Amino acid sequence: MTTLDNFYSQVRAARPLDPILLDKPIALEALQTPALVIDLDVFERNLQKMQSYLSAQGIALRSHTKMHKCPVIARKQVEAGARGVCAAKVSEAEIMCDAGIDDVLVTSPLATRDKVDRFIGARKSHSGIKLVVDHEQSATLLNDSAGAEGLSVDVFIDIDPGMGRTGVEAGEGMLRLAEFVCAAEHLKLAGIQMYAGNCMHIEGFQDRQAKYTKVMQKGIETLALLQDNGIEVPIVSGGGTGTYNMEAELGLINELQAGSYAFMDIEYRDIGGRDSGVFSDFEVSLFVLVTAISQPQSRLITVDGGFKSFASDKMPPQFRDVEGVIYHWGGDEHGIIQLDNPSREVVLGDKLAMLTPHCDPTVNLHDFYFPYRDGLVHEIWPVSARGFAF
Amino acid sequence: MTTLDNFYSQVRAARPLDPILLDKPIALEALQTPALVIDLDVFERNLQKMQSYLSAQGIALRSHTKMHKCPVIARKQVEAGARGVCAAKVSEAEIMCDAGIDDVLVTSPLATRDKVDRFIGARKSHSGIKLVVDHEQSATLLNDSAGAEGLSVDVFIDIDPGMGRTGVEAGEGMLRLAEFVCAAEHLKLAGIQMYAGNCMHIEGFQDRQAKYTKVMQKGIETLALLQDNGIEVPIVSGGGTGTYNMEAELGLINELQAGSYAFMDIEYRDIGGRDSGVFSDFEVSLFVLVTAISQPQSRLITVDGGFKSFASDKMPPQFRDVEGVIYHWGGDEHGIIQLDNPSREVVLGDKLAMLTPHCDPTVNLHDFYFPYRDGLVHEIWPVSARGFAF
Repeated sequence: MTTLDNFYSQVRAARPLDPILLDKPIALEALQTPALVIDLDVFERNLQKMQSYLSAQGIALRSHTKMHKCPVIARKQVEAGARGVCAAKVSEAEIMCDAGIDDVLVTSPLATRDKVDRFIGARKSHSGIKLVVDHEQSATLLNDSAGAEGLSVDVFIDIDPGMGRTGVEAGEGMLRLAEFVCAAEHLKLAGIQMYAGNCMHIEGFQDRQAKYTKVMQKGIETLALLQDNGIEVPIVSGGGTGTYNMEAELGLINELQAGSYAFMDIEYRDIGGRDSGVFSDFEVSLFVLVTAISQPQSRLITVDGGFKSFASDKMPPQFRDVEGVIYHWGGDEHGIIQLDNPSREVVLGDKLAMLTPHCDPTVNLHDFYFPYRDGLVHEIWPVSARGFAF
Repeated sequence: MTTLDNFYSQVRAARPLDPILLDKPIALEALQTPALVIDLDVFERNLQKMQSYLSAQGIALRSHTKMHKCPVIARKQVEAGARGVCAAKVSEAEIMCDAGIDDVLVTSPLATRDKVDRFIGARKSHSGIKLVVDHEQSATLLNDSAGAEGLSVDVFIDIDPGMGRTGVEAGEGMLRLAEFVCAAEHLKLAGIQMYAGNCMHIEGFQDRQAKYTKVMQKGIETLALLQDNGIEVPIVSGGGTGTYNMEAELGLINELQAGSYAFMDIEYRDIGGRDSGVFSDFEVSLFVLVTAISQPQSRLITVDGGFKSFASDKMPPQFRDVEGVIYHWGGDEHGIIQLDNPSREVVLGDKLAMLTPHCDPTVNLHDFYFPYRDGLVHEIWPVSARGFAF
């Protein structure tokens, strides 16, 4: 017998926060499948490359944990130099706080008292947790809940980059909300957030940069409007993997909310880089290991990964090491591989690594990562914040 | 420090098998969102209706737990009269065995020694767990692993209904594999499986029945071929929610593998019933409760459910109680609702129930069900077999 609040607390408390160590390393091919695996050399290069680049540009990194949902990875990002992390939900932020991450920004607004109270519950023990607001109603809820606990909460105001998803309107709408927040007794305006998710995957560097520059103009104008009205904003947060090398030139964002750079996926790989049709600034480090389990026809072979192993909101997955074949969705648990002109033989029982179409929702399907180096897995990392939907 | 085998065992042992009881009932609207909720009255009607119908037809029900992944629900199905359950994976089957379900069929073939050994590990303590085979290679693996433990294992031979996903070819191919299984010292031919997943969602009852009848002819011929060769097959398993009322007339299947009938979803609702354009034989009992969290434009409102709350392999979700609006995917955590001509006002902070496009992979995104009756939640059911991908 439990209360609802205790239930939520118990789910949170049960989430693992540390790596699970194997008593001896095991070969990647010894893993039972489907298994979410990370090439550690590539992953570490990605972390290093993004941090070095941003540090040289004077831009802080606030890595987005909605992508990996893993406290082990969040700690590595902070150790590599990230200022802190983003979380899409309070439940994710709680896990990151529990894992010892000091600076955590919840990037999606809350509109109900239960969620706001839950946020304030986390804020009581973790002074560095912050929240975006995009409406006077949610700012009022937050101010009331903070006041009830005698707290002052750092807030970022979320500006809509024209996506129509979240965020207050740029310009006068934003100014009014900023004044509202500044006047609220228990809120402190710590920054603004303008995340143009609609620009991240535009194919072609020049097209992406042109669109992004245009979209972000409203942010530049809004920031000037706030300053003209005596409102200083220390942090301007936004951007992502697809715009990381456009921000310095643009001059608005001083804190990047990148997530996918650590793992990469087919969708990001295909957007194109500054000098190439393939976006190779960061390399793919995340794969799903699957097994060929059936072959009803000679030109088809079926693997044990379908809608429950790969997010299906984008294109189908691809093999890392086999070309000349096509993956077709085969339902919840299966993929059917069309063996057109395979670059290597694929036979029953083979375990094969596949690139993920879209890393964030794919990770969310799994409970554990199996990171490997030189073909060996030494430890297992929990996807601690997944499935914790509420 | 742990071994890989111990890790798998520990993950299994940590899965909850029972309802979590709330000390007092709470209103549905008190749940934090996104939350997977079940209308208990409807759910129970669905269970009752399917079981009564099949019992009257002399067809056994082996409900598919890949749909709900929940031991609490599996027990209710067995209590209502189901012979046993199906599981798509060994990991799911383990959870159902642990929950006390006696008769569990793993419906997807295994092609590696590690998974076969894991199955045999479960078989050692649960005599009623069974496995499909569709190839001499996997049958040999199973026979060897069973022999090493001195066990005899019940197997079902999986026949490909022309999907090219899993299953041996009907006819002679099937006969050879059946003879192989009958000759294998540690295998016992307990049944055949022919699941025509390619027919379940054909729109229009007549079209569906015509296609299904054609596809299943090969099964009828194969069964006759086996009998002509002195091989008796007690159980013929297959079919699903979309064909439940075609099986008796067809006369092949004597054990139905239905799953979705318990929850239903948009995809099944839209296939059409025997006398209606809507398949209303079973009613939708499963919803995702979401909250309206942002409204950047007056004609749009954003809810906190996206790719991580709803499976995206099919159409977008729909509201249960609001018409005249359109849900657009808004990314991993968001849906953007276009308020064309809403049948009721939707405002910030509203909690709203949404129908799921495809129940199986949607359930797999969540960790808990919140079943309700008369608007009150009394207990919470774990989605115990989810995320347990390997």
